[in-house]
Amino acid sequence: MDPSALRSLLARVKRGEVSVEAAEESLRATPFGDLTYATIDHHREWRQGHPEIVFAPGKTPDQAATIAHQIYERSGRTLVTRVSAEHAAALLARLPDAHYEKRARTVRCSPQATRTGIVVVSAGTADEPVAFEVRETCRFLGHEPRLIADVGVAGIHRLLRRTEDLRAARVLVAVAGMEGALAGVVAGLVAAPVVAVPTAIGYGTGLGGLAALATMLNSCAANVACVNIDNGVGAAVMAALIADGGAEPAS
Amino acid sequence: MDPSALRSLLARVKRGEVSVEAAEESLRATPFGDLTYATIDHHREWRQGHPEIVFAPGKTPDQAATIAHQIYERSGRTLVTRVSAEHAAALLARLPDAHYEKRARTVRCSPQATRTGIVVVSAGTADEPVAFEVRETCRFLGHEPRLIADVGVAGIHRLLRRTEDLRAARVLVAVAGMEGALAGVVAGLVAAPVVAVPTAIGYGTGLGGLAALATMLNSCAANVACVNIDNGVGAAVMAALIADGGAEPAS
Amino acid sequence: MDPSALRSLLARVKRGEVSVEAAEESLRATPFGDLTYATIDHHREWRQGHPEIVFAPGKTPDQAATIAHQIYERSGRTLVTRVSAEHAAALLARLPDAHYEKRARTVRCSPQATRTGIVVVSAGTADEPVAFEVRETCRFLGHEPRLIADVGVAGIHRLLRRTEDLRAARVLVAVAGMEGALAGVVAGLVAAPVVAVPTAIGYGTGLGGLAALATMLNSCAANVACVNIDNGVGAAVMAALIADGGAEPAS
Amino acid sequence: MDPSALRSLLARVKRGEVSVEAAEESLRATPFGDLTYATIDHHREWRQGHPEIVFAPGKTPDQAATIAHQIYERSGRTLVTRVSAEHAAALLARLPDAHYEKRARTVRCSPQATRTGIVVVSAGTADEPVAFEVRETCRFLGHEPRLIADVGVAGIHRLLRRTEDLRAARVLVAVAGMEGALAGVVAGLVAAPVVAVPTAIGYGTGLGGLAALATMLNSCAANVACVNIDNGVGAAVMAALIADGGAEPAS
Amino acid sequence: MDPSALRSLLARVKRGEVSVEAAEESLRATPFGDLTYATIDHHREWRQGHPEIVFAPGKTPDQAATIAHQIYERSGRTLVTRVSAEHAAALLARLPDAHYEKRARTVRCSPQATRTGIVVVSAGTADEPVAFEVRETCRFLGHEPRLIADVGVAGIHRLLRRTEDLRAARVLVAVAGMEGALAGVVAGLVAAPVVAVPTAIGYGTGLGGLAALATMLNSCAANVACVNIDNGVGAAVMAALIADGGAEPAS
Amino acid sequence: MDPSALRSLLARVKRGEVSVEAAEESLRATPFGDLTYATIDHHREWRQGHPEIVFAPGKTPDQAATIAHQIYERSGRTLVTRVSAEHAAALLARLPDAHYEKRARTVRCSPQATRTGIVVVSAGTADEPVAFEVRETCRFLGHEPRLIADVGVAGIHRLLRRTEDLRAARVLVAVAGMEGALAGVVAGLVAAPVVAVPTAIGYGTGLGGLAALATMLNSCAANVACVNIDNGVGAAVMAALIADGGAEPAS
Amino acid sequence: MDPSALRSLLARVKRGEVSVEAAEESLRATPFGDLTYATIDHHREWRQGHPEIVFAPGKTPDQAATIAHQIYERSGRTLVTRVSAEHAAALLARLPDAHYEKRARTVRCSPQATRTGIVVVSAGTADEPVAFEVRETCRFLGHEPRLIADVGVAGIHRLLRRTEDLRAARVLVAVAGMEGALAGVVAGLVAAPVVAVPTAIGYGTGLGGLAALATMLNSCAANVACVNIDNGVGAAVMAALIADGGAEPAS
Amino acid sequence: MDPSALRSLLARVKRGEVSVEAAEESLRATPFGDLTYATIDHHREWRQGHPEIVFAPGKTPDQAATIAHQIYERSGRTLVTRVSAEHAAALLARLPDAHYEKRARTVRCSPQATRTGIVVVSAGTADEPVAFEVRETCRFLGHEPRLIADVGVAGIHRLLRRTEDLRAARVLVAVAGMEGALAGVVAGLVAAPVVAVPTAIGYGTGLGGLAALATMLNSCAANVACVNIDNGVGAAVMAALIADGGAEPAS
Repeated sequence: MDPSALRSLLARVKRGEVSVEAAEESLRATPFGDLTYATIDHHREWRQGHPEIVFAPGKTPDQAATIAHQIYERSGRTLVTRVSAEHAAALLARLPDAHYEKRARTVRCSPQATRTGIVVVSAGTADEPVAFEVRETCRFLGHEPRLIADVGVAGIHRLLRRTEDLRAARVLVAVAGMEGALAGVVAGLVAAPVVAVPTAIGYGTGLGGLAALATMLNSCAANVACVNIDNGVGAAVMAALIADGGAEPAS
Repeated sequence: MDPSALRSLLARVKRGEVSVEAAEESLRATPFGDLTYATIDHHREWRQGHPEIVFAPGKTPDQAATIAHQIYERSGRTLVTRVSAEHAAALLARLPDAHYEKRARTVRCSPQATRTGIVVVSAGTADEPVAFEVRETCRFLGHEPRLIADVGVAGIHRLLRRTEDLRAARVLVAVAGMEGALAGVVAGLVAAPVVAVPTAIGYGTGLGGLAALATMLNSCAANVACVNIDNGVGAAVMAALIADGGAEPAS
Repeated sequence: MDPSALRSLLARVKRGEVSVEAAEESLRATPFGDLTYATIDHHREWRQGHPEIVFAPGKTPDQAATIAHQIYERSGRTLVTRVSAEHAAALLARLPDAHYEKRARTVRCSPQATRTGIVVVSAGTADEPVAFEVRETCRFLGHEPRLIADVGVAGIHRLLRRTEDLRAARVLVAVAGMEGALAGVVAGLVAAPVVAVPTAIGYGTGLGGLAALATMLNSCAANVACVNIDNGVGAAVMAALIADGGAEPAS
Repeated sequence: MDPSALRSLLARVKRGEVSVEAAEESLRATPFGDLTYATIDHHREWRQGHPEIVFAPGKTPDQAATIAHQIYERSGRTLVTRVSAEHAAALLARLPDAHYEKRARTVRCSPQATRTGIVVVSAGTADEPVAFEVRETCRFLGHEPRLIADVGVAGIHRLLRRTEDLRAARVLVAVAGMEGALAGVVAGLVAAPVVAVPTAIGYGTGLGGLAALATMLNSCAANVACVNIDNGVGAAVMAALIADGGAEPAS
Repeated sequence: MDPSALRSLLARVKRGEVSVEAAEESLRATPFGDLTYATIDHHREWRQGHPEIVFAPGKTPDQAATIAHQIYERSGRTLVTRVSAEHAAALLARLPDAHYEKRARTVRCSPQATRTGIVVVSAGTADEPVAFEVRETCRFLGHEPRLIADVGVAGIHRLLRRTEDLRAARVLVAVAGMEGALAGVVAGLVAAPVVAVPTAIGYGTGLGGLAALATMLNSCAANVACVNIDNGVGAAVMAALIADGGAEPAS
Repeated sequence: MDPSALRSLLARVKRGEVSVEAAEESLRATPFGDLTYATIDHHREWRQGHPEIVFAPGKTPDQAATIAHQIYERSGRTLVTRVSAEHAAALLARLPDAHYEKRARTVRCSPQATRTGIVVVSAGTADEPVAFEVRETCRFLGHEPRLIADVGVAGIHRLLRRTEDLRAARVLVAVAGMEGALAGVVAGLVAAPVVAVPTAIGYGTGLGGLAALATMLNSCAANVACVNIDNGVGAAVMAALIADGGAEPAS
Repeated sequence: MDPSALRSLLARVKRGEVSVEAAEESLRATPFGDLTYATIDHHREWRQGHPEIVFAPGKTPDQAATIAHQIYERSGRTLVTRVSAEHAAALLARLPDAHYEKRARTVRCSPQATRTGIVVVSAGTADEPVAFEVRETCRFLGHEPRLIADVGVAGIHRLLRRTEDLRAARVLVAVAGMEGALAGVVAGLVAAPVVAVPTAIGYGTGLGGLAALATMLNSCAANVACVNIDNGVGAAVMAALIADGGAEPAS
Repeated sequence: MDPSALRSLLARVKRGEVSVEAAEESLRATPFGDLTYATIDHHREWRQGHPEIVFAPGKTPDQAATIAHQIYERSGRTLVTRVSAEHAAALLARLPDAHYEKRARTVRCSPQATRTGIVVVSAGTADEPVAFEVRETCRFLGHEPRLIADVGVAGIHRLLRRTEDLRAARVLVAVAGMEGALAGVVAGLVAAPVVAVPTAIGYGTGLGGLAALATMLNSCAANVACVNIDNGVGAAVMAALIADGGAEPAS
């Protein structure tokens, strides 16, 4: 039910053409899918501009494929994250045109992304799965980000050589584990907002990404905000919203 | 030295009108202030669009006032945060037109802010100092945000009544201590990006804001990113950048 | 040995019909089962109104089945939690009428539950195993709770649509991982007490449920109390006791 | 506006006697107080059966007294917690009949409590401020609890001698710092639900109450649920709700 | 080299019968075994009254068996802890008279223990492996402890019924996971010192035994001291030393 | 009421010379003091061999003095710990013969201690307050310990020079903050049991004594057990019990 | 491109023999390898005196072998750490002269090391893998360290017997898990700087090496600095730099 | 007693000119000062090349001055750290030539430092007290370090402009709070070893320096080792040892 249909329904209620009970019935029936194992939040697309992203863990391959397919049918695009090989197989069987990005553990089916302005920077090879999850999510949201990989701060000249590319961004996503210093250094080099994603890469006092997170939250640069450890999806959603200029205020 | 002056200097170097040594000398001499107790980063304005924000703790009232005054002379605006009453007195003596916002612990001197699109939401009365720091920083950056206070999730109807106002934002800042759930709930109500600021308000397991931070980082909503506990400045900088549409990419 | 038997025994001691030594012998012999690998606390039913609930981990399938069977023989009902598939097979072989709820990892054998007034609310699909453990434990205790699933706060409208159902509860159990904000929001919507169960669902800073727990303990709503992470049994016991009006005070 | 007034208003809307706009105006205007420094949630009484409890920290004595007075005018009772001596003086000046319980740091003004069934058990002398906060909050809610103090588990016989008193409760509140074992031991002695309040009493590894909290959350007894460290208010609210038989389900 | 041999050697040095160099050579050569993968500390028996206890993890079955055998040859007793099934097989092949206590994961070969006075108390079935490790280590040290199992505080009457047995101890070892309250309650019942062993049993906020440890360290009873989580060996060594009356002071 | 009086009372109950009700009345009335602010546990002396030790924090000087005096009247000795200067003044006014050990923050009144065998070792000057609390508590318990101060492991030769003194102990108490390594090194030098007391001395990663505690709990030496941070009383009680050969088993 | 080539290139730019664009092109093309899965930092050798050390986890055996081979081709030495058996096989196939040190999980190919002055001390058998990683890395850097194993502080005499060997070092590396006290004790015995490596060896409160790390950071000896848990590579790099007298200052 | 005196004494023992008892007496009497409140470790100078550094906290001004004076008398130099104003006054009264560096909280009396090669880099103004403590300690050890202040990574160009100065160091000390990234970035720019000192500067998730410490321990650069938070003394001792080429191996 799109917004104009809703307004029309309400107007009919007001005019007495539809009883309150019937209207309520109608509204209740519409917006949620009715798979027994999950309430698909189709309202979300209307509310937030993109359909729900499916988190695969805890769902069987078949469940994940069914949900993703239903979303795709309705919205013309779908993204499933943290998929196992089994999930991927089931998804590709149901959505033959989907793209399985193995390193990112994602399956995506969406139109060619065309918007630009997002740059994704990652510190080391081991951070690439998260960087790729960021990229796949950006694509699902209509953005084709530029990826600058393996530019950790321990060899700062590798990063500095890319300063021009960094400054060409409207918004950046910095992905780093270990010491996590990349986000703060990048933020000092650019005027753009930086969305920082700590990764669980590291050992010992890395504490599964907590050290990188702490570094990022304590950044001396003010143009940094963080998402949860390994949360490539959240970073991409934030970055896409920023690149799009924030929300278009409801008039 | 503004960007065109720099380019001109480099061109003169190229044309041999200025020796490399002289040019270097000139560049070295220019961009940093030379107070003995701090290196003012005047480059920052050129690089990031706004002058350095002065963090008062650890500086004497006189030092803070001198630095702020020097920045104001150069840039026409200045902001000092976490000021004590003594800091404030020294600053107002040197900058008579400045505004001392006692609850926010800020002293600011800047032109009337005119840009809009930022909404600051705070959970409880005790979160207001941070919310006010956000607002003062936004004003320093040229934005006049709308403030919606005391709408914590324990009385969700108070928040829901403001849904329309929330949806009118291009970007939101959610300020909350205690359980910190406000950010995630707000993010679920809007399509805009939400910058979350945990505050140290609470006791016991609140752990000085760590509980609120954890809540925000684990938000099920994807359009949320966090800054450090009580970091109103960082949240405002991120929000202003987002409201301005991210960085204007260098051409 | 039921309470009246005990009182009778003591009266006979007083009247000298039974020696102190014999009485002590008798009392010692009675209340505990004598399996070598566990002391079944049959006193518990007399003391707390329901037989001991069997925690399967650390017990062999055969041990678990023997204990459960002995309890069932004595009390007419039994509940085994956190069962593996092997435990379940052994239990069903010994208790053919038992119900194996696979997602909850429980095996239960008890009369049809008839009491109502408990509502179990869960945030996401992944929280369902714990929500189902709550339900199975409630049934074992004679209560048939209403289950409202997948109503996390990131899509608050899904929850609000169920406000009427929530307010129909005498007591609620809120099950949530990730940010754990569900408990506080629900508590703000109702007048009833809310028993909060954090789950280990999440990653990174979720810290295996600690983030959700912290959120719940710091709830601004006062009508919330928490149990351990994933402790569906404890939540159900609390909820059943509350729905029954607390303990019937001993006269 | 009480529930019947609301229903009447809505009926008039339906009958066209009041326009939707006027009704909305009326509803918006009513339920919130309009002090500039706080939005008093008068809806809460209607929704939750008791007026908002005022948390003093962060409010000036005058603010606290004004808010408390306004609540008292409207509801006939008020409770302010965590008061300083200055808060207390201002409150007593405005509410001469109020009771200042110094150890609990509360000021309360409410009718004589008459309901019974709550027993508050505390471990050591140092836990009494929290135990008294529980009692004052219970009284505000209409309950006169029985207080059993200084019965920590290190001298278990002191506790066991009170078994009969413990078993006379419909619900118990266990208040303990240090090792926090009291809650679990009490829960093993009774059939009633136990609301556990860890206190910050202790030193070193007590970690400001976290050790006691951990003990309580890990209790082997299932009839225990916890509130935040030192949260006497929350424990009392839960206990009163339980003693009252949970919420009266909305029909 | 036993103490008298050492004294004799030194006397001969003093009398000039042995050069300092030769004496040093002799002393250096003697006390350490020379397996390439471990320096067996044979000095320990002379210094501490019992041979080194072998910790199996990180050693191959063959290494463990060789070390244990060499110790046995020299000292007439040996104890290997945390053995895998493979370790056990290799040990039993080399030491046919050894006793493999599967639940304790120990292999022990030592004379019949005869000393008494130690009582080992454990809270739940799942704590038994640690309780058994305590018992096996006590036996290796010449003590036959009394084991009182499954007497956790949630059913305090089970523990109290054993008060007489507890008071018969010269020293107690309390083994408990989950809430860990057993140690403090036992310590309140007896005059004897209590060595507390937290176990990793539990889940969620149990934090792998940290919650139980915190409880024990914060015990209100003063006659409690703790060892590391699951450290049955340390607890047994302490208990045996205490039961033996502390060290026999060197004259 | 001493043990023989109790046995006599029970015998009279048995012979019918005293009614059960009267006996109960008598038993209830006797063992607890009836100060309103604290239940003095006079049973403790009978049960544990020494009267309750008074913890001053949270008690007014007058309360502390009254309690201490009442214990002294009854038992001929008393110990108050963590006293402020005000506590000390009030105590000395009431107990003129008491000894105020300022660095230990204790006031003690007890007969000359005569038993020996305890050695207290401390790492640095800053650990002395805790070492002195250990000594004062030992004296209260009838033991005169030997104190070896300032022998931290960073200058291991200072410690090794005292090896003979260490080996003369029946039991040792090791007091150390910072890295806390003293306990393990001492334990490796002696055959006696070592009670380890971490202190809060240190900074940064010392975490208020948690680092020292962790070191002690992870000691490779098996003859070490720990008490809470700064818990000199607990260490002394354990040490005295051990030096006395554990509890005298009840016959 | 070695430093003199670079200087030559720049001079030619200055003389106009090479355009800025061409020079930049040339510089960009040179220093980085261009494998798609990793940017080999060949600059590092020029900058830091040794080629990049390859961290195997997250790389396929083939990737690791290709990278290592390319480094070896260029630099005449290579080191791969944390290799699996599969990595080792692939590496040995490509680098037949390499040395696979299984316990250290390293594959190294480098000229015979000749420099001395480093002593590596380790506490227990289980710490050897890290000690061996230190040794292999030292060898890669041209140093042949002396290894003193199994000299933990619980048997301090084993360590003290090696005092002379310890004092012969120019720099020491101390490797220890469990309590981690070895570093501080060694530092007290020598005048040389000590690089401390905590290992994850231990259990319970060892917290995966955090306890050992805390001990080392809180060492009372000032000549200690730490690297991350299990970071044998970092310790070896520091030690080699120190043994070489720090960096040769650029003239 | 210097080394040659010691050797001489031992030779006389050997020749029978001095009895063993007298020699022992003599050795025992010599090396330790005998102030009652502290054992001054005069051995340290002989063992480690510099006299003990006095840590003021926990010592009275008079004690600190007495100890420092005694050390100065013996060694010709002394350093007292973490002094209060009162400590400083007492020290300057006793050591009129001493230098009180207020920001560093040190009092030092030592010959003009002449050795060079140490560079101290600090991130922000607030880190200067620690940087100055490093410098004062270096001077006490005979080194005059170069100080490069206020070059945090958020404005990386400020740091990069000093690359040449950084590369001129034989060893560097990096002092940083907040995110602590400075150490890793500096380490990537130089070939020299870097001693990292986290400071407690920051707030919220800075956790009193733990975040900066974690960043430094997880640095991707291998030439970094850390000391405790705010431990300027330790960093200076390490740096001086490194600049001196490690220990001069005992021949």
